[in-house]
Amino acid sequence: MLIVMKQTATADEMDAVCERIASMGFEPHPMPGATRTAIGVTGNQGPVGAHLLKEMCGVLEVIRVSKPFKLVSRETRDRTIVEVGGKVQIGKELAVIAGPCSIESYEQASTVAHAVKAAGANIFRGGAFKPRSSPYSFQGLGKEGLEILATIREETGMPVCTEALDEENLELVAEYADIVQVGTRNMQNFSLLRKIGQLRKPVLLKRGMAATLEEFLMSAEYILSGGNYDVILCERGIRAFSTHSRNTLDLSIIPAVQTNSHLPIIADPSHGVGIREAVEPMALASVAAGADGLMIEVHHDPDAALSEGAQSLLPGQFQQLMDRVAKVEAAVERPQ
Amino acid sequence: MLIVMKQTATADEMDAVCERIASMGFEPHPMPGATRTAIGVTGNQGPVGAHLLKEMCGVLEVIRVSKPFKLVSRETRDRTIVEVGGKVQIGKELAVIAGPCSIESYEQASTVAHAVKAAGANIFRGGAFKPRSSPYSFQGLGKEGLEILATIREETGMPVCTEALDEENLELVAEYADIVQVGTRNMQNFSLLRKIGQLRKPVLLKRGMAATLEEFLMSAEYILSGGNYDVILCERGIRAFSTHSRNTLDLSIIPAVQTNSHLPIIADPSHGVGIREAVEPMALASVAAGADGLMIEVHHDPDAALSEGAQSLLPGQFQQLMDRVAKVEAAVERPQ
Amino acid sequence: MLIVMKQTATADEMDAVCERIASMGFEPHPMPGATRTAIGVTGNQGPVGAHLLKEMCGVLEVIRVSKPFKLVSRETRDRTIVEVGGKVQIGKELAVIAGPCSIESYEQASTVAHAVKAAGANIFRGGAFKPRSSPYSFQGLGKEGLEILATIREETGMPVCTEALDEENLELVAEYADIVQVGTRNMQNFSLLRKIGQLRKPVLLKRGMAATLEEFLMSAEYILSGGNYDVILCERGIRAFSTHSRNTLDLSIIPAVQTNSHLPIIADPSHGVGIREAVEPMALASVAAGADGLMIEVHHDPDAALSEGAQSLLPGQFQQLMDRVAKVEAAVERPQ
Amino acid sequence: MLIVMKQTATADEMDAVCERIASMGFEPHPMPGATRTAIGVTGNQGPVGAHLLKEMCGVLEVIRVSKPFKLVSRETRDRTIVEVGGKVQIGKELAVIAGPCSIESYEQASTVAHAVKAAGANIFRGGAFKPRSSPYSFQGLGKEGLEILATIREETGMPVCTEALDEENLELVAEYADIVQVGTRNMQNFSLLRKIGQLRKPVLLKRGMAATLEEFLMSAEYILSGGNYDVILCERGIRAFSTHSRNTLDLSIIPAVQTNSHLPIIADPSHGVGIREAVEPMALASVAAGADGLMIEVHHDPDAALSEGAQSLLPGQFQQLMDRVAKVEAAVERPQ
Repeated sequence: MLIVMKQTATADEMDAVCERIASMGFEPHPMPGATRTAIGVTGNQGPVGAHLLKEMCGVLEVIRVSKPFKLVSRETRDRTIVEVGGKVQIGKELAVIAGPCSIESYEQASTVAHAVKAAGANIFRGGAFKPRSSPYSFQGLGKEGLEILATIREETGMPVCTEALDEENLELVAEYADIVQVGTRNMQNFSLLRKIGQLRKPVLLKRGMAATLEEFLMSAEYILSGGNYDVILCERGIRAFSTHSRNTLDLSIIPAVQTNSHLPIIADPSHGVGIREAVEPMALASVAAGADGLMIEVHHDPDAALSEGAQSLLPGQFQQLMDRVAKVEAAVERPQ
Repeated sequence: MLIVMKQTATADEMDAVCERIASMGFEPHPMPGATRTAIGVTGNQGPVGAHLLKEMCGVLEVIRVSKPFKLVSRETRDRTIVEVGGKVQIGKELAVIAGPCSIESYEQASTVAHAVKAAGANIFRGGAFKPRSSPYSFQGLGKEGLEILATIREETGMPVCTEALDEENLELVAEYADIVQVGTRNMQNFSLLRKIGQLRKPVLLKRGMAATLEEFLMSAEYILSGGNYDVILCERGIRAFSTHSRNTLDLSIIPAVQTNSHLPIIADPSHGVGIREAVEPMALASVAAGADGLMIEVHHDPDAALSEGAQSLLPGQFQQLMDRVAKVEAAVERPQ
Repeated sequence: MLIVMKQTATADEMDAVCERIASMGFEPHPMPGATRTAIGVTGNQGPVGAHLLKEMCGVLEVIRVSKPFKLVSRETRDRTIVEVGGKVQIGKELAVIAGPCSIESYEQASTVAHAVKAAGANIFRGGAFKPRSSPYSFQGLGKEGLEILATIREETGMPVCTEALDEENLELVAEYADIVQVGTRNMQNFSLLRKIGQLRKPVLLKRGMAATLEEFLMSAEYILSGGNYDVILCERGIRAFSTHSRNTLDLSIIPAVQTNSHLPIIADPSHGVGIREAVEPMALASVAAGADGLMIEVHHDPDAALSEGAQSLLPGQFQQLMDRVAKVEAAVERPQ
Repeated sequence: MLIVMKQTATADEMDAVCERIASMGFEPHPMPGATRTAIGVTGNQGPVGAHLLKEMCGVLEVIRVSKPFKLVSRETRDRTIVEVGGKVQIGKELAVIAGPCSIESYEQASTVAHAVKAAGANIFRGGAFKPRSSPYSFQGLGKEGLEILATIREETGMPVCTEALDEENLELVAEYADIVQVGTRNMQNFSLLRKIGQLRKPVLLKRGMAATLEEFLMSAEYILSGGNYDVILCERGIRAFSTHSRNTLDLSIIPAVQTNSHLPIIADPSHGVGIREAVEPMALASVAAGADGLMIEVHHDPDAALSEGAQSLLPGQFQQLMDRVAKVEAAVERPQ
């Protein structure tokens, strides 16, 4: 931590600040400068009570220096590879998690699953429990949806990824899913994160709509601090002022995560832009930016979809996307 | 819903759109204009599958017209008055919910409670379960905190407001609290909202950091649709690009809520700005903008507070704030 | 400036950083801490080339400490009072700058001017040169508009405020106006700001839609650094994700400006919210938050206005607003 | 335009709205629905005065339907190819505009220019007039910088791109530059845009930090409406809440521009992220998203650069970026 003194701060005021730092058990380091003095603080393991110092006479500003995340930090580990269902190694090979927004029926799920598998997807997705902004919208098939997912896994050999909405259905979801997804609106549902930290199962953590990099990593920290190290991060668009896309897909967080953390990060262009024709260009951009994978919504009959039809790709469109993704992946030579 | 056709749309394309609208069970209303044709859609009770139409040949754009909220709408009711603990009528008299961020001990809570009561607060607040962005921060006293709140209520006669973090502690919190608070990070925790809809107890719903007015009202709609009509909305600052305050207190949502909904809305300037010296001016601004109340953090020893010390007022500062709030309240002549 | 070293930084790496700091002519202050070392830098008068240090081995982060603004800083001066036309002292008494968005004719300007004067406004506003996002919209009467403003000033005794759009019309505008307005889209038109710094005439500088406090103050610094100290800042709404108001009026910048600068700051709720019925509550909120004045759009026939009719108040509405503003102003006891 | 009536609107209120629409010279189209009535408006060539209708009794909302841009619209033309200096066809081949942020000396410019040419750049960039947020920062070499650019063009055969800051230096800049750049802070400097519309020279228009797609295209419309059709759009990062990058590069605007306009669009990842190590991944992402080109800052000695050193690539880094860009470009098979 660093204390910046006002230009007008007196020697007595500086002494008082140094004394308080010492009384807190830390060490003050006064640095007289050309126009003002700054005082460094060392010896603190965790966050120091900045407000104790900020309001003292002569203090202009208190600047926090240390980053609060520990277990997720790149400083502690090189790269995490998350193994999913004994089949896919996220962080090593490109993960393509594809499927419908919601599981609507066995026929729907099976049709889409076989199509995405044929096109090259390696993980199947589909919601059984759906978070909907309106209480009057379709809320998912629940347990029946999970059973359909298990059947699909058996039929296709693909691991499955589905969302746990709350602590109540987490146990059930964890029983069926190969990857438990935490939705964007739950990124700071700390009670849920704690419970998920107790699982020994891969977790896909979606970035909150207004989450900074630090908050995103701190939510992952909750899960790791419970002992579950298999966390996959997912950028899915932030809320900005733009109206030309549903959200603003912030691909710059991909290199930023890679600099600050060892966790793999994938992108979800379907939710990120929310417009069918923009999904492919943004998927290609995600891979080019270094994403460890993609999450893509696919539906064989989007016009009849019970949710998010407008952003779902048709199987043929997904096939074309996969062909082009493969070329971009080869072009950027992902480290394997 | 309104379908806007391209300038180049042919008569056949228009016919096809009208036929599809009819086949969906609705009525098409073509309106040929100077440069293009628009087609109105009526007969739909809920949202029409816009994507069914958006991708048809000749269609430029599909525009949604109806607002999705029903029970919270000002169209259904004039104003809701929420009665709290038989003592305070929020929506009628100015609610001032004051107290520490976290309940730390009986002594702390009692000291602050008597001080805020003396200054004119009519509801006591204090967190027993705390949502913290770091798993390593103080998480609240839990049940012990709730018991302290109950004692404070008995001692002071003030109703108490405290946060339920998750479905697990909701029942417990509801047993003790006069107002159950839903935090900003839980505004779209739909499972929690549904459970809260089953309560018959006032709820304080904080706006999510990136929530639009519509999303905010739809979260309230979840609670009302469960049968609990006693919802108080709370603006607590949104996330914008600014760095001079912790969040950006968006007071313009106060008149917007009053136009669109019958629910009362209060403001939380403590979290909204996060800087002690800015709390009073923003509290006064909130009342002047028409807020039905304030939520203010007060601590008798903020330097020793276990959370949010930097934004807590000292009892003396709170007393001054209350004196000035009373003057502004009188100046704006709140409808009673 | 502060250099934060990685946990893994070696003694050699730290020495190299200290040597480079010294070679830049500054003084390094190493502060070994519990988990890592930080190195303070002093002796720099201006910004030090942070990138010279940031990319050295072992460096985790470089943190800038000093604020870049000088002349506008509260550290250099207590409060600035801007005297306008020998009549109004902005910073001392509440400035109410009212009038139509655009000057459309003498009759229109005169009607509105007499109405706002009667209601208590002390400065008249009206655009002669209008910045419009469409090249096909009404662009203002130009010089004719300025002449109308001069006539209004003579008739009413009110000083007039109008916008200079570019360097070309600045000279002309400055000839007629008592306050030269710089619009939000020109807040970082540095060429214009430099020319305005050469004027000896009060300037109203509107905050850019995406400007931080620091950028806002640095734009004022451009004007002060040219020798023109009579700058009035104006908050007029920032761009955030909200859709319930045209912009998001960020009143929290009022106390923040007052902490960091000696310049007066007013608020423009008309542009800030852009909805007629929300102008009054936000005007009252601005005054309660400590604004030194208001800028309000008034039109006697908003339905026929050539610009911004939807946010203009009718004279009767403005009269009511002024009555209520006076009460709130008295309630908050502005320092005089 | 579409008028949505309240549920409670009476037949008389609806008649009054229809009459007013008719009196404005347009045609009303009432569409009675299940819960409320909407009234379409046709016959209007330009924007109808929405506020005339919005405040009538019984009106809930007025929704604008037509987009305001005309000449830039994809509806009017397929794709624009901008020919630069008789050498590069932007919109057809990938444009790579590379060079230092500022021209500092002939030696610097020449060194960088030869390096970027060797690596495959086809246009040289460098600022002679620099917009700086502080009046105390280096402001560019001015005319001397332009002369250096002309020399570089002669030596290397590369067309040159440089910024015009204001109307005063526009003429001078246009004399030397092959592409005149309009900076992000000038995107809504309408006086400058009008003058640029009079040029017959390619223009690079950077998106404003808080500009919507519509505002961005309307600023281009200003230039086209003056008769200059050679406009290249440039995404350079918007202002959002993120702190992990300097701006938030919004690549989703690339497909959105391509859907709505015929103008080419390039990306500037150097300003977009502002961090050297993130420039390459975001450059690759831009090309994968379909950008028509890139603008990249390169400096042979960034530590000594007078501006933006921290985001400039070294020539070797730029060479690597170009090698990888070429592979991604081939992978995505740009339409030629």
